Order: sequence, then structure tokens, then C-alpha cells
Amino acid sequence: MIRIAVDGMGGDYAPAVVVDGAVQAANDFFDIEIVLVGQTERLKHELNRHKVLGGKLVIQDAPEVVGMGDSPVAALKKKRNSSVGVCIELLKNKEVQAVMTAGNTGAAVAASTLMLGLLPGIKRPGIAISTPTLRGISIAMDVGANLNPSANELFQYALMASIYAQEIFKKKNPTIGLLNIGEEESKGTEVLKEAHKILRDSPLNFLGNIEGRDFFTGKVDCIICDGFVGNVVLKMCESMLETGMELFSRELKKNPIALLGAWLCKPALSAIKNETNYEEAGGAPLLGVDGTVIISHGISSARAIRNAIRVGADMVSNQVNQRIVDQISQIASAAAAKGEGKTA
Amino acid sequence: MIRIAVDGMGGDYAPAVVVDGAVQAANDFFDIEIVLVGQTERLKHELNRHKVLGGKLVIQDAPEVVGMGDSPVAALKKKRNSSVGVCIELLKNKEVQAVMTAGNTGAAVAASTLMLGLLPGIKRPGIAISTPTLRGISIAMDVGANLNPSANELFQYALMASIYAQEIFKKKNPTIGLLNIGEEESKGTEVLKEAHKILRDSPLNFLGNIEGRDFFTGKVDCIICDGFVGNVVLKMCESMLETGMELFSRELKKNPIALLGAWLCKPALSAIKNETNYEEAGGAPLLGVDGTVIISHGISSARAIRNAIRVGADMVSNQVNQRIVDQISQIASAAAAKGEGKTA
Repeated sequence: MIRIAVDGMGGDYAPAVVVDGAVQAANDFFDIEIVLVGQTERLKHELNRHKVLGGKLVIQDAPEVVGMGDSPVAALKKKRNSSVGVCIELLKNKEVQAVMTAGNTGAAVAASTLMLGLLPGIKRPGIAISTPTLRGISIAMDVGANLNPSANELFQYALMASIYAQEIFKKKNPTIGLLNIGEEESKGTEVLKEAHKILRDSPLNFLGNIEGRDFFTGKVDCIICDGFVGNVVLKMCESMLETGMELFSRELKKNPIALLGAWLCKPALSAIKNETNYEEAGGAPLLGVDGTVIISHGISSARAIRNAIRVGADMVSNQVNQRIVDQISQIASAAAAKGEGKTA
Repeated sequence: MIRIAVDGMGGDYAPAVVVDGAVQAANDFFDIEIVLVGQTERLKHELNRHKVLGGKLVIQDAPEVVGMGDSPVAALKKKRNSSVGVCIELLKNKEVQAVMTAGNTGAAVAASTLMLGLLPGIKRPGIAISTPTLRGISIAMDVGANLNPSANELFQYALMASIYAQEIFKKKNPTIGLLNIGEEESKGTEVLKEAHKILRDSPLNFLGNIEGRDFFTGKVDCIICDGFVGNVVLKMCESMLETGMELFSRELKKNPIALLGAWLCKPALSAIKNETNYEEAGGAPLLGVDGTVIISHGISSARAIRNAIRVGADMVSNQVNQRIVDQISQIASAAAAKGEGKTA
């Protein structure tokens, strides 16, 4: 049984939608138990709408709430009593094996990093998101935790994303691409040129630089980028389908025959919508911290929350963090041996 | 009459498609004369396919070609004899009033900056592209000339983009947004926080930070960003329609009724394709250099080349560069007066 703490107060539609998702997860997944963290009375009120299988969900009180607009610093001040702070505390004390929050991302990253610490050898944590492409799911990392990663941090993101793709999405020897403004290794900032070299000389399956146009084609399994460009691109993707549909419906208003056509196309359009739906992936792990923390979109639906909780459980049962630690230490040993070989 | 030098050898389909576009511009626009620059024999060969109105197009020889994969440094070494180098030289010597190239962007930026110099007061040039949104055209700047702009350079991009939007796209008091990872002014890198302050205190119509999701909604007239994220986002946009169509056609293969529906929708889909077609804008000015230089996409069609040449002529006739110089100097005077006021 995997126990997961769910931040009941985090998210644009919390606590109602988070409670709905947590209940779905508790009832749908036989191997998951939920600790729902937040203002007890409000959570109880929401739970009244549901039936939960016996013993699968308990409430843990946390009187404070970190707002979506709070700065990470302000959030940390109330961390001990906030729902996200209590979740991380439970994880630190090994009372749960994973945390899921759809609240303030900056606060979740700051609290996780400071309270849990980092995995041995890891320099900075990063958020790894799964995104639909023409050839299935790709992982993009980082999408918002680290706006100015160093070359070595980008390399570590590639390593962590690769393990995540392998363990959770069952990709064999996942391919890695470095997001850049051109394919040639001479392109981009100094940091990217250096990251390119480190990746090229590493045991990872590095295919080279990729460009913005490769994002949706599934050219690589793991897209590695800084958290600024990752965040912009991610939010852009989310609005794309909406924009496309808006343009389409404007044209349809001018043309009744096309409107009939669109009606006939509806099943195909729904299939695309489902295929590209962020809800199915649901959550993005904060990789690199010493603990399993899943961050969900603030606008997450109940289904997205449910699936994010599933991702947390899969991270635990596949021992993703242990594999990261093993691979980082292997690479460090290999580098040390190579250094000794040179001096011998 | 506006004379424009066209880099006949620049672009993925040069010289054939560039010659086609230059001829279209010469024949379609009564106020434009073309100087087609490149390997004379090859250009003449391409021109054989066309009829050009008398005196509207001449050839200027340039024996060397800068490849699309050449580094800007390699390109500069052969600049004197390359088609792009000769174009810029003609502009410098005032034999033409503008340059249009679909060749190697790095080479065009480097040659323009070094040979023409910058407008008085401008720190770094940037590329301003027009992009379709739900509310018409928006300008995004920079999209690839400057990967690490300072806060003041971002402010200058906002100023130049604003003048460009006003003079060429007839936007009144254009709105400005700073591309960031959140709307709050505390978000983003130190450079972005500083740029936010400068913009807020400036006479520009600054609406604040915008996020990736606002890119296509037309929330602002001018989207200001560094050249790295601008370039990634731009290339992503280009592949989006393609990706959407690929997903759609896959679904249609599974569903014959939807296929009929798609056929009925065809006019609506074509209308969207036209509305969001980069060809209509065609070219992006390199703003900030002392001269009018239009950079076109390497994959430009003849129509895109023709329209890019038109943008160059419009930049000249609307005296965009003069307006930039005037406004930069006004802001400098105002800042100086304010400084004097303080000490008085």
C-alpha cells in the first residue's frame, strides 16, 4: 500500500475539485491510501458529497493556506501550518511516501527543496512534464523550477528525465534533445554550448540540439531546457487548442455547410482533444529532491488530480529516485576512474 | 521610387524562389525598384523565366554565397563578396534604401550591425516579427538576434516594437507585454524584474507581464522577450498547424463520416490557414541598425519574399528608423531634465 499526502487546499478550484480527485484515486486504485491535508472542516464538508472505500482516505489538519499568488518567501513563512508544508513534513517523517499538490508551484518547490533536501549528487531540482506529441508522450524538463540552470544542471535534468521516461513511460534507452535555436552545436548561449558537450560525452542517448518546431513531432523522448523557456512553451501549448478551436468556430459561423461538416467531424475532434489532454498525464514530478513530490496544474480537474496521484504512486513503486541516485553515482565513479587512468 | 537590394542567393530555395518573389514585387508595386544581388549568371538564368516591367529590376554581381549553416564569423570573412555583404554595402553607400534577405540570419545580423552601425542611443539590434493572433497581428521582439538582452535592451525593444506596430500596422498607442512565467511583477529573472520597472515607469503603454498562454490571444500588440525564447516560440508556432493537421488526418482515416465532414469544412480550414499564414507578413525588420534591413524566413515562398520587400518599402516611406531615433532622444532628454529637476 502506498500512502500519498494530497494538498487539499492547493489549486484554483480547491478544495472541492481536489477532494473529488483524491476520492477518485482512493476508490479507483487498490494500492493507494490518501492523507488529505488542509482545513479539516472544509475538507469534511466536501467529503460529504462522496463515498470513500473504508480506510482509504484520512484527513490531516493544516490551518493555513498558501495562495496561488503568494511569493515563495511568504509561503515559506507559514509553511509549518500550511497544507503544502504539512504534506512535505509528512513525507520528510516517512508517514507518507509521496506528495501531490496543485497549489502554488514556487511554494511547493521551495518547501520541498528546503525541507527534504536534494538527492545525493543533484545540484538543483527541476519539474518534468509529460507532453503529447505526434509519436506519443515526450518529457520536457525543466518547466519552471530553475530559470537559469548551469550546463551541469541541464545535464542532470537530462539524466533524471531519461530515467523518468524509462521507468514511468516504459521508453527504452530514451532519446534526449537540447532545446536550442539551431541544430548545430555552435548555436545558443555559452551555457547551452557547454551542456551540449557534456551531454555528447555522456552515456545518455543524446541526439543533439532540437528546435521549437520539433516540440510536437516527438523527435526525442526528453526535451531538455531551462525553466523559463520550458514554462513559456508549456503555457503556450495549453492555449493552443483553445485558440485553434476559437478560429475554427469563427469560420464556421460564416459557413453553414462547414458547420454541418464540423458536426460530422466531432468524434475526430474529440479524439484529438482526448489525445492531447493534459489531464491524462495529470502531474509533473519535481525531480531531484529527496522525496516524491508531484506538482499539478492549478486548473487541474478532478480527473487530472486523480492521475497525478497515480503518477506519484508509480514513481514510488518504480523507485525512480533510487535509480537517479544510482546512475549519478555510477557516472561520478566512471569520471573519477577516467581521471585516475589519465594520471596513471 | 524606393530602391531595395534583394539577396538573390539567400534562402533554402534560392535563387529560384527569391527571383520569383523579387519579380512579383517589381511588377506588383509601382513604387519599388529591385537590385537583385548574387551570382549574375545564375540570376540571369532564373530571370529568363520571367517578364519584368522596364527598369524595375537590375542585377548586381556578388560572387560568394553565405550558406545557411555558416557561422556568422565565417560569413563575415567573405562578407565583401557575398550577396548579403554586397546588399548591406549598397545600403551603407545609400545606393539602395533597404535590404531584404532570406539567407543566414546570424550572418545578416552580424553584417548589418558591423557595417551599418546602430541608430543613435540604441544598444543592440533585435528582430521584430508579426504574428497572427485572435485579435489580429501582434509584434514579437526579439526573436533571435540577442539571446541575453539586458533590462535596458528589453526596454528599447519595447520602444522599437511599439513604433513599428504604430507605423506599419497602424495600431494606436500599442500595448506592450513582457513575456514572463507569471503576471506578478516579482516573477522571472532579475533582468526581467528590472525591465518590468523600467517599462512601468516609461511613457510606453505597458500592460505588465504576459504568459505563454497569452501569445495567441492578442492580449497585447507587442510581446517583448529575449531572442532565445522568442526564437523557440516562433519555430514552435510554425510547426503547430502542421501538427494539428497531422493529428486530424490520422483521426479521419479511422472515420469515413468525419472524412466527409472534413471535406465540407475545407473552406473554413483554408480560411484559417490563410489567416495564420506567415507568408502574408513575409519579413521581419532588424530594428536598431542604422538602415532598413528585412530578414525573411529561409523557407520563404515567392509570395513571402514579395511581401517582405513590401515591408522594407513601408519601413522606408514611414520613416520608422527616424521615429525610433526621435523617441529615444526624447526619452533621454526627459530623463536628463528629471535628473536636473532633482538636483535643483
